[in-house]
Amino acid sequence: MQPQAERVTRAAVPALDELLGVALPVLDDGFVRVVDYMGDDRAVVQAARVSYGDGTKQVSEDRGLIRYLLRHRHTTPFEMCELKLHVRVPMDAWRQWVRHRMVSINEVSSRYSIVTDSAQRTAPDAWRRQADDNRQGSAGCFGEAEGAAFTAGEREVHALTRRVYEEKIARGVAREQARKDLPLCTYTEAYWKIDLHNLLHFLSLRMDAHAQQEIRAYATVIGERIVARWVPLVWEAFVDYRLGAASLSRIEQEILGAIGAGDAGRACALASEAGWLERGAAGLKRHRERAEFEAKLAGWGMTVPWAADLR
Amino acid sequence: MQPQAERVTRAAVPALDELLGVALPVLDDGFVRVVDYMGDDRAVVQAARVSYGDGTKQVSEDRGLIRYLLRHRHTTPFEMCELKLHVRVPMDAWRQWVRHRMVSINEVSSRYSIVTDSAQRTAPDAWRRQADDNRQGSAGCFGEAEGAAFTAGEREVHALTRRVYEEKIARGVAREQARKDLPLCTYTEAYWKIDLHNLLHFLSLRMDAHAQQEIRAYATVIGERIVARWVPLVWEAFVDYRLGAASLSRIEQEILGAIGAGDAGRACALASEAGWLERGAAGLKRHRERAEFEAKLAGWGMTVPWAADLR
Amino acid sequence: MQPQAERVTRAAVPALDELLGVALPVLDDGFVRVVDYMGDDRAVVQAARVSYGDGTKQVSEDRGLIRYLLRHRHTTPFEMCELKLHVRVPMDAWRQWVRHRMVSINEVSSRYSIVTDSAQRTAPDAWRRQADDNRQGSAGCFGEAEGAAFTAGEREVHALTRRVYEEKIARGVAREQARKDLPLCTYTEAYWKIDLHNLLHFLSLRMDAHAQQEIRAYATVIGERIVARWVPLVWEAFVDYRLGAASLSRIEQEILGAIGAGDAGRACALASEAGWLERGAAGLKRHRERAEFEAKLAGWGMTVPWAADLR
Amino acid sequence: MQPQAERVTRAAVPALDELLGVALPVLDDGFVRVVDYMGDDRAVVQAARVSYGDGTKQVSEDRGLIRYLLRHRHTTPFEMCELKLHVRVPMDAWRQWVRHRMVSINEVSSRYSIVTDSAQRTAPDAWRRQADDNRQGSAGCFGEAEGAAFTAGEREVHALTRRVYEEKIARGVAREQARKDLPLCTYTEAYWKIDLHNLLHFLSLRMDAHAQQEIRAYATVIGERIVARWVPLVWEAFVDYRLGAASLSRIEQEILGAIGAGDAGRACALASEAGWLERGAAGLKRHRERAEFEAKLAGWGMTVPWAADLR
Repeated sequence: MQPQAERVTRAAVPALDELLGVALPVLDDGFVRVVDYMGDDRAVVQAARVSYGDGTKQVSEDRGLIRYLLRHRHTTPFEMCELKLHVRVPMDAWRQWVRHRMVSINEVSSRYSIVTDSAQRTAPDAWRRQADDNRQGSAGCFGEAEGAAFTAGEREVHALTRRVYEEKIARGVAREQARKDLPLCTYTEAYWKIDLHNLLHFLSLRMDAHAQQEIRAYATVIGERIVARWVPLVWEAFVDYRLGAASLSRIEQEILGAIGAGDAGRACALASEAGWLERGAAGLKRHRERAEFEAKLAGWGMTVPWAADLR
Repeated sequence: MQPQAERVTRAAVPALDELLGVALPVLDDGFVRVVDYMGDDRAVVQAARVSYGDGTKQVSEDRGLIRYLLRHRHTTPFEMCELKLHVRVPMDAWRQWVRHRMVSINEVSSRYSIVTDSAQRTAPDAWRRQADDNRQGSAGCFGEAEGAAFTAGEREVHALTRRVYEEKIARGVAREQARKDLPLCTYTEAYWKIDLHNLLHFLSLRMDAHAQQEIRAYATVIGERIVARWVPLVWEAFVDYRLGAASLSRIEQEILGAIGAGDAGRACALASEAGWLERGAAGLKRHRERAEFEAKLAGWGMTVPWAADLR
Repeated sequence: MQPQAERVTRAAVPALDELLGVALPVLDDGFVRVVDYMGDDRAVVQAARVSYGDGTKQVSEDRGLIRYLLRHRHTTPFEMCELKLHVRVPMDAWRQWVRHRMVSINEVSSRYSIVTDSAQRTAPDAWRRQADDNRQGSAGCFGEAEGAAFTAGEREVHALTRRVYEEKIARGVAREQARKDLPLCTYTEAYWKIDLHNLLHFLSLRMDAHAQQEIRAYATVIGERIVARWVPLVWEAFVDYRLGAASLSRIEQEILGAIGAGDAGRACALASEAGWLERGAAGLKRHRERAEFEAKLAGWGMTVPWAADLR
Repeated sequence: MQPQAERVTRAAVPALDELLGVALPVLDDGFVRVVDYMGDDRAVVQAARVSYGDGTKQVSEDRGLIRYLLRHRHTTPFEMCELKLHVRVPMDAWRQWVRHRMVSINEVSSRYSIVTDSAQRTAPDAWRRQADDNRQGSAGCFGEAEGAAFTAGEREVHALTRRVYEEKIARGVAREQARKDLPLCTYTEAYWKIDLHNLLHFLSLRMDAHAQQEIRAYATVIGERIVARWVPLVWEAFVDYRLGAASLSRIEQEILGAIGAGDAGRACALASEAGWLERGAAGLKRHRERAEFEAKLAGWGMTVPWAADLR
């Protein structure tokens, strides 16, 4: 390496500088705000060229190298960029958020400060139904009429819990104890600092359709409005190789090979061998792994080899 | 190292084995339960002897070596032991708990499961007063008469939030959304796994007098009833060198040296130089660092050199 | 959860207990040895059932649940198991090894102990050729005749470095400094402790064909001889969904869809749009991402839509 | 919090900007170079005020708050600053360096790149003697005459290992394998990124008198020339409360209390109870913990109560 040849000013991203200090609204009363950042697309490239040295020569330009790194899960160059956000978020979403451990956090303490009068409110048409398939949190919304009752209940709870909290504070109960009966959806605020590799991992989980809607709202703002501006080449690669990617297991690949070879019989035999084609009274028994593969085939416009058996 | 010379069964601690599966009660409805563990006092010693090789020969026995390691903050040998607990804890205490990141957690999900009917309840004589010194969370309790009103308010909140939650569940609102207005003190459960080094760090912060009473109750049970049984030599050293230890800054040592030499004048000069002895209208101004040192001197039965100025 | 219903003895794996303390040989003079472990297949299941609660009911048996968790990258239940190994490994392989950070390590210190007389030796027929494709470390071996010269050079280096080291030690040079000119391939020993999730990640990278042969030899022993015994259901799922898995990017899936629909024209158009089909003087230009996709198609017995253009 | 009230440009430190890209020399051929940074003294304060809210009001100014945080080991605000360095360092020092895990690293790969011709060289008067007390690595240097022989041996090893390496490279041996017999002190390069809290921890261990001289040389440059410029208030507090601090155990405090009370008899009784005063044929037996306390007393100009027994 030639130390003297490298840039001697800090990496800066004018498009993100414009956003510094701007509170991007999320939910009814939350926000995400960029406080500071370190690095840019080029910092990822720079770190990769250090690591892989001559090995990166074949990839002549930055975009190609970034795509290569992300596709092949070379993670350390992405750790060289860092983002610091100030967020305001309901505590129940925050509980999911803080499960990501490779971060730094400074959260407002309700031991020391009085909790502001703010809990997340739900519009009558925004109450979601429990999905039958329990894995997915929710499925569709209630009508406004039915939802109005839930919203009224919410209002009642917020009013009571607020009154009880403020009475206790007024009469000198310790803040750390007075807060105990505030609702889980009370807003909190925090500084949240994370490197780009771990941020992408956070986004891949929290922008996912299975993530709860509230945290997904935050992740989407962070991804589409902040990361996309900050490191546009990384973001493009992330969308292509991570958000839009599918994984194929060893078994799935073998079956796909049989389909590709036009050999439906072998495809069925392989599926059968894997225990995918057990029969019950009403045709094939439910099998989660088979169902997942069928969904992939459908997405690619391919016929399911055992389709005839599915009835 | 002589591989063949080492023991070929797993480290086991009969005293802790007796406790496996036993729920040790904490607060009104919480518990801590040992699920599994790896290692013992000897595992710490074994790892240290690998690391420091001949360097440990001078410390002839296990107890001495463990004390040496803990006193000098050699941390990696303590990482070689691991503890897995099942805990039941109010979510507001759990929020402090999960700030410790070097752990593994599997928490009950209220997205997938219906929340059990249990929020932490407070007895009329257990409501704490806000301390004047804000750093300390609370100071003394209210009388039973005054506390009864708070407890009644608590009961009212629990009843309403429970009713609203159950109505929403009954009418098919998604669990992940229905829970949003439950109280912060709702009990949750989790598996919590941590290595001994990080556990000691957790205990040193959470058994501390400044920790909130609720989490301190858990930390104390974990420390005194579980760790003390599991690794008695480590626990003894921890009590001596960590829980009961004080730190002396460069400045404090210099002043202590002057005190030790019987030179009160120099002690005062050093304190003055450090900005500790500024005067206001009513004698010496409040100075936090000086106050901390005075408390240490008092603890050691020593006279404060500038005592005359304090009036 | 019903605390009392759970098992009250520690998880034990008799098949692994038999291996405790046994040094499994690796390379010419290295080994891997199981010192201790915590958890088993059931511990993964147990933790998952805590986390996902009712959500796991649909998956009726342990094997199915473990496969589901691994397929969908639910990682925390795997963190509930822990393995502690004693390894003896050349320092240059160890340098790659310690890049994995979510572990605990106690390594022999050559500051405190005298380094044993052992550097990794290479047989005449084991010298590998540099691959043209620089990304892959090596490609095939030299013949024994040519290799004999390299082995002789190795022997000369080892003899000299050893002699120089021992002279310095004998004359009282500090051990920490005397070791500076020992070869990178000098053997070291360490205790290495890691949870199962991070271990699987380590294995997926280090059992890979792109990993350097030396560390791959260790990873293979750890995977096939230790993990496979310790947690057989997890291992089976890991082989199916991780070792044998392929990833398909958004673009690759779109093209695969066109292939599945029998629309080679659209497949080519999509590839062209993605910049995969630029032409040079001698047909299509080299394009790494296209080449990777072609290899996948070949593996599945499918025809490359732009095959005619490749000439 | 008032989002709009906060600064909307990134934290910048002109004194450190001047140093960007400048290679600060260390050892015979190493360097440390600042590539980028995030945050400054004010960023620590800002994060602390978020966390502790009203709790920080009493500490009116930044310097006082930073000192308070560092004294009381409030670590998360320091995690809000980040430093990225480019270092060139002998691999044997680098092995100690990478033991710090809470960092991000991109190191030059000698699998992909040819190793530059550079191993650390030692001047004839820089060979250190092995300390009798094995814990301390070295004690004083050899004379130039005696050292000249060691330097000659070093030169011989470097010449041979270099020749053997280059022959193998020239004849096409894989780089990843050819490097195996290079000396441990061969220089490597890396990007190293770490937050300020973990950096201070690194410095407290590696600037310590017990750290090996080579890594101490790097830590000293990083601390005194980089951190001192970057976050001068944090650095000042670090020097006072960490580098210059001493710890007193429970036992030591009790004995100090007896000394402070002028009760030498009780001091001796407490020490005796702790097992510090066992007698052998030649007076008191060697006892490491007692010796450490005696050294502290000496530093503070205090008399050892059992001094008469020491003869």
